[in-house]
Amino acid sequence: MEKTILLKQRPEGKPSMSDFEFVTEDSDFKLSEGEVLLETVYVSVDPYLRGRMSDAKSYVPPFELNKPIQSGIVAKVIETKNRNFEAGDFVSGLLSWKTKQVVTGEGLVKVDADKAPLSAYLGILGMTGLTAYLGLTQIGKPKAGETLVVSGAAGAVGSVVGQIGKILGLRVIGIAGTDEKIDMLKGKFGFDAGINYNTSTDIKADLAKEAPNGVDIYFDNVGGPISDAVLFNINRFARIIICGAISVYNETELPKSISVQPFLVKNSALMQGFIVSNYGEKFPEAMKQLSEWLAEKKLTYTETIVDGFDNIPNAFIDLFEGKNKGKMIVRV
Amino acid sequence: MEKTILLKQRPEGKPSMSDFEFVTEDSDFKLSEGEVLLETVYVSVDPYLRGRMSDAKSYVPPFELNKPIQSGIVAKVIETKNRNFEAGDFVSGLLSWKTKQVVTGEGLVKVDADKAPLSAYLGILGMTGLTAYLGLTQIGKPKAGETLVVSGAAGAVGSVVGQIGKILGLRVIGIAGTDEKIDMLKGKFGFDAGINYNTSTDIKADLAKEAPNGVDIYFDNVGGPISDAVLFNINRFARIIICGAISVYNETELPKSISVQPFLVKNSALMQGFIVSNYGEKFPEAMKQLSEWLAEKKLTYTETIVDGFDNIPNAFIDLFEGKNKGKMIVRV
Repeated sequence: MEKTILLKQRPEGKPSMSDFEFVTEDSDFKLSEGEVLLETVYVSVDPYLRGRMSDAKSYVPPFELNKPIQSGIVAKVIETKNRNFEAGDFVSGLLSWKTKQVVTGEGLVKVDADKAPLSAYLGILGMTGLTAYLGLTQIGKPKAGETLVVSGAAGAVGSVVGQIGKILGLRVIGIAGTDEKIDMLKGKFGFDAGINYNTSTDIKADLAKEAPNGVDIYFDNVGGPISDAVLFNINRFARIIICGAISVYNETELPKSISVQPFLVKNSALMQGFIVSNYGEKFPEAMKQLSEWLAEKKLTYTETIVDGFDNIPNAFIDLFEGKNKGKMIVRV
Repeated sequence: MEKTILLKQRPEGKPSMSDFEFVTEDSDFKLSEGEVLLETVYVSVDPYLRGRMSDAKSYVPPFELNKPIQSGIVAKVIETKNRNFEAGDFVSGLLSWKTKQVVTGEGLVKVDADKAPLSAYLGILGMTGLTAYLGLTQIGKPKAGETLVVSGAAGAVGSVVGQIGKILGLRVIGIAGTDEKIDMLKGKFGFDAGINYNTSTDIKADLAKEAPNGVDIYFDNVGGPISDAVLFNINRFARIIICGAISVYNETELPKSISVQPFLVKNSALMQGFIVSNYGEKFPEAMKQLSEWLAEKKLTYTETIVDGFDNIPNAFIDLFEGKNKGKMIVRV
């Protein structure tokens, strides 16, 4: 018997277990021509999935109720009627939260277990790395010597953004929620400075201290009061990459912040929403660069691996408590 | 005796007469080599001057206390020891609020009273026109068939933005504060639709009705709740030009709005602060285009002319009550 996780109801505020439903089904799979049978190996859980669980207008259609949830998955080919894939191949793609599934080959990418650990293809060599690299370079347009601030810095994307910032010659300041995370940013990932937003009594002032020349680039994963504090420190011609707003994803009332408009006009600053899928034509170049840096050990990464298919919803919910360090992945 | 208007104190909230001081001085002017004596003819009063009256960090230094206020002025050359100017010439430049003044020729531009009314050089052929044209084209990057929303649409910049939008083939919707202004937008300036924010009970819904295909470009002169309502209607890849935030210039507490970040990320949208002086190298091309359209009668403009040097502060204060239609100018 194989398992599937459905979206049972749209979360109100913070997602909870009752929003998900587990169903089991027979494991008697029949392949048509062109199809492959996949066994799930690693499942990526990501904050952006919260958006697809709502039915608000967005850049991707919402998940349907009583249908499987989908996310980035690395799977093993078990059976194949598609000449592009052999049994034993590993592939990554946007797949359903199922222990096994039959799909056409469309959108599947073969991944090489010898070149990097398979989970890396969901992280630093997957959407996470592409998001960090392309967001920072395409919108941030960094110049050596500038100052970069990253919020959600200990998260999957944030920790890669900071490292790329260092490679490109920036002063890098990370904002995260525990002293342990701050130590990791400075120790493991080479950030120049870190601010713990839970213990800081004045993020704005602490940032002014750590960014004496002001902030040129802000890679924003969180929104909310942390981003408000950064605005006070931006320089003329600052670039703000809005990659996520995890702090407000679960709000049921419309979140309020300080008005950004006066800050943008005073500083001729730019704020742009970033969605990695808009930059598909840059993926090959970005993947090449990330693989090189990874091979040269200029980039490293952290994963929080949770074991067991049944723990997928919990791992997802834990994202909003900041329980992950780096990329949150479920090993099936 | 000649008059000068000084900044006596920095306004708290809305500016008032007590923030300004009139002084008189002898009219015995002595010119050094390279200098000209100017007599003020037209004075531009603009919302952005409010920013320079505060001492907050901004893109231009604040006005100094007990020093003359400066703005765009058209003046007549009365006496000259500068070979570039003859007595009787008209010039425009950033000059002091004085009935007469001695300056070097630096930064002065000769203007031609035969080609356009002199006041136009403070408006449609001055910073106003350049701001409208360059903000819309450089950040807005309009494509025929798209939908443009303009706030502060009956103001100096807004009314030009809307007309340029129509020339470039956009659907143009203006937001303004009286039915009379809305009639002017649709009648005189050719806007497709207008929304009166004072009588609308739901700007967001009214805008959805007038922009059935969503909003691709938002030229924002006001900020605040009007801009919040526009955000709900933006399309994927929308461009938002932050040209001003008149609704919050006088706030003494930090203004709050809905958080823009989730809207920007959901729509891969861009929001950028626009300051015309950053685009100096584009001025000649822009002036050429604006002059052509004006000559072809594709562009028209409205001025609110107030008479008398002594009325400069009042005219400025009236901007924040929306008492002007189009460019507010004082004739001395």
